[in-house]
Amino acid sequence: MAISFTLLHRDGAARAGLLTTPHGVVETPIFMPVGTQATVKGLTPEMVRAAGAQIILGNTYHLALRPGDELIRDLGGLHRFMNWSGPILTDSGGFQVFSLASQVKITDHGAKFKSHIDGRLLELTPERAVEIQENLGSDIAMVLDECPPADADPARLQAAVERTIKWAARCQVHQRRSDQALFAIVQGGRDPQLRAACARELVALDFPGYALGGFSVGEAPEEMHAALPACAALLPEAKPRYLMGVGRPVDLLVGIAAGIDLFDCVMPTRNGRNALAFTADGPVRLRNAQHRRDPRPLESGCTCYCCANYSRAYLHHLFAAEEMLGPTLVSMHNVAFYLRLMREARTAIATGRFTVFVATYLARWKDDS
Amino acid sequence: MAISFTLLHRDGAARAGLLTTPHGVVETPIFMPVGTQATVKGLTPEMVRAAGAQIILGNTYHLALRPGDELIRDLGGLHRFMNWSGPILTDSGGFQVFSLASQVKITDHGAKFKSHIDGRLLELTPERAVEIQENLGSDIAMVLDECPPADADPARLQAAVERTIKWAARCQVHQRRSDQALFAIVQGGRDPQLRAACARELVALDFPGYALGGFSVGEAPEEMHAALPACAALLPEAKPRYLMGVGRPVDLLVGIAAGIDLFDCVMPTRNGRNALAFTADGPVRLRNAQHRRDPRPLESGCTCYCCANYSRAYLHHLFAAEEMLGPTLVSMHNVAFYLRLMREARTAIATGRFTVFVATYLARWKDDS
Repeated sequence: MAISFTLLHRDGAARAGLLTTPHGVVETPIFMPVGTQATVKGLTPEMVRAAGAQIILGNTYHLALRPGDELIRDLGGLHRFMNWSGPILTDSGGFQVFSLASQVKITDHGAKFKSHIDGRLLELTPERAVEIQENLGSDIAMVLDECPPADADPARLQAAVERTIKWAARCQVHQRRSDQALFAIVQGGRDPQLRAACARELVALDFPGYALGGFSVGEAPEEMHAALPACAALLPEAKPRYLMGVGRPVDLLVGIAAGIDLFDCVMPTRNGRNALAFTADGPVRLRNAQHRRDPRPLESGCTCYCCANYSRAYLHHLFAAEEMLGPTLVSMHNVAFYLRLMREARTAIATGRFTVFVATYLARWKDDS
Repeated sequence: MAISFTLLHRDGAARAGLLTTPHGVVETPIFMPVGTQATVKGLTPEMVRAAGAQIILGNTYHLALRPGDELIRDLGGLHRFMNWSGPILTDSGGFQVFSLASQVKITDHGAKFKSHIDGRLLELTPERAVEIQENLGSDIAMVLDECPPADADPARLQAAVERTIKWAARCQVHQRRSDQALFAIVQGGRDPQLRAACARELVALDFPGYALGGFSVGEAPEEMHAALPACAALLPEAKPRYLMGVGRPVDLLVGIAAGIDLFDCVMPTRNGRNALAFTADGPVRLRNAQHRRDPRPLESGCTCYCCANYSRAYLHHLFAAEEMLGPTLVSMHNVAFYLRLMREARTAIATGRFTVFVATYLARWKDDS
């Protein structure tokens, strides 16, 4: 087994556990910073680590297109290529094909599409998705799935689920590496019965971990919050559960409450690059003139490198002057913020205070945007 | 005295010494990375320090315009604002007024100009230049000088020198802080007699350090190389000598050979952001396809963070993918490269091998650009 998963604590449906991978142990629930193109944007791996990251995500679609998965394999794999010695999860590339590529044609065989970089005609099949991820050498790989938009019609959803199940089985058959765990992805949109059917089929295939897909593709957050408990409950209790591409701090709390263990999202880094910082009191927009002379750190009490060493006035200046250090420092803080949230959630679960923690957390949060 | 300067070794006209400032001791000859807008572009102060930097430069013109020198003063000074605890030298802003601002009008009183940021009409006088730098709280401040282009006619050069001398004296009179050293700047373009006259007048005013200005404003490198020995010799032996805004590695070696102690230039960081790296074998252009699969570090034998952890293939990928980490890593290497050059030069001077060092260094350097 490439991975093992041990549940340590439960608090309602929320769980705290340990996920052991070939590149180290991860405490769950955990947030995975996104390193799309073999770098967490604007941060060195040491900064990512210092922010509390235990596992990061890499994007199969982007890396297969550029620099190419064979190249990364020949250079010793993704860990070595990007100088990250900890665990890595790679997605399957399916979501990016549907969201970034053009002229996408899906058949049972796979997805044909044009590269968003150079217009090359390419094909992603379940077998190729596994091959790419084995070349990258991630600790956890994802099966290729079909991810229709949230408002797709029932027939389309049904077809996507059937294809997702068949593709998952083909990925499983094609797997060669014993040091990489392959997770399945449950689709089914907003249809509980479709989700249940998809989960049932995939659980029968006995994957070492399961993800919920299709929850960051345009639905209202409230819909997702309402659907998550039932969806998470469809997944095996003893295996890690991953909610793909989600989300805001509140979404992570709802996910954890529903029994999710793994999360990823570009929000901390993307928002950081745009001068939007997360704090326990809500978001802070550092371009606002009110910060121009503010000697206080971005978030009082935060021990991250940014908050320990710089004022809001300095961060405001960096963004006004369009200096690279601004995006770097605020990305760093935001990643640290997300990982502190996970740490606090784990502690709350371990001590049976998770509900109080969530209520207190959200009562303090003010979003004036 | 805010600073003291001790000469330790001589080798021909080259010298190695120690410059003691309120924020620490600097080994000379030294290169100062440029932190124009209160940040060395793309690098944290820790990265700048790890690259071997002992003193950095801040730009008075930029900082006075944005975020403003009073704001920086109110927040505890430039060191604290930007989280750099080592020595800082600030220029006077004169060079930037002449090169960046528009509608510049110079009188004996000072320079009137329009801000390149928001078009505000502003004035920089010798007194204001000192005031700004005292607000910033740098260890070494520069007098306001008039810096005409290299091809200015003799009358213009003569007038600029006369004004530069008068302005230097006014700066000296206006100085209030005892923890900041004020350096004078010798102008005079390509006219040896004018340079000599300017130096004579300024030396009579007994500044704690002297700079050569006007050597990065369009003249051919060969002209500068030819002029430097005589120009450096005009400056007091016992005081630090600073060649402003210069330059390429070969220019630094010629400068050191002429007896210069301090240098600054944007080349290591600007080139680094553009994927151009310095190595002992000459420049390396990391966007070139030849690096796409190259597992070697940027420069073999270099101990900097970039070379210790990343391949040329990875750096090539980062620039192809327009990832921020590319400019950061190559800037880091280039700054480390410049500071290694200084370290090697100091050792060569201390052991009486400087000429052999320069010859060996330049014989190896290949610029295929």
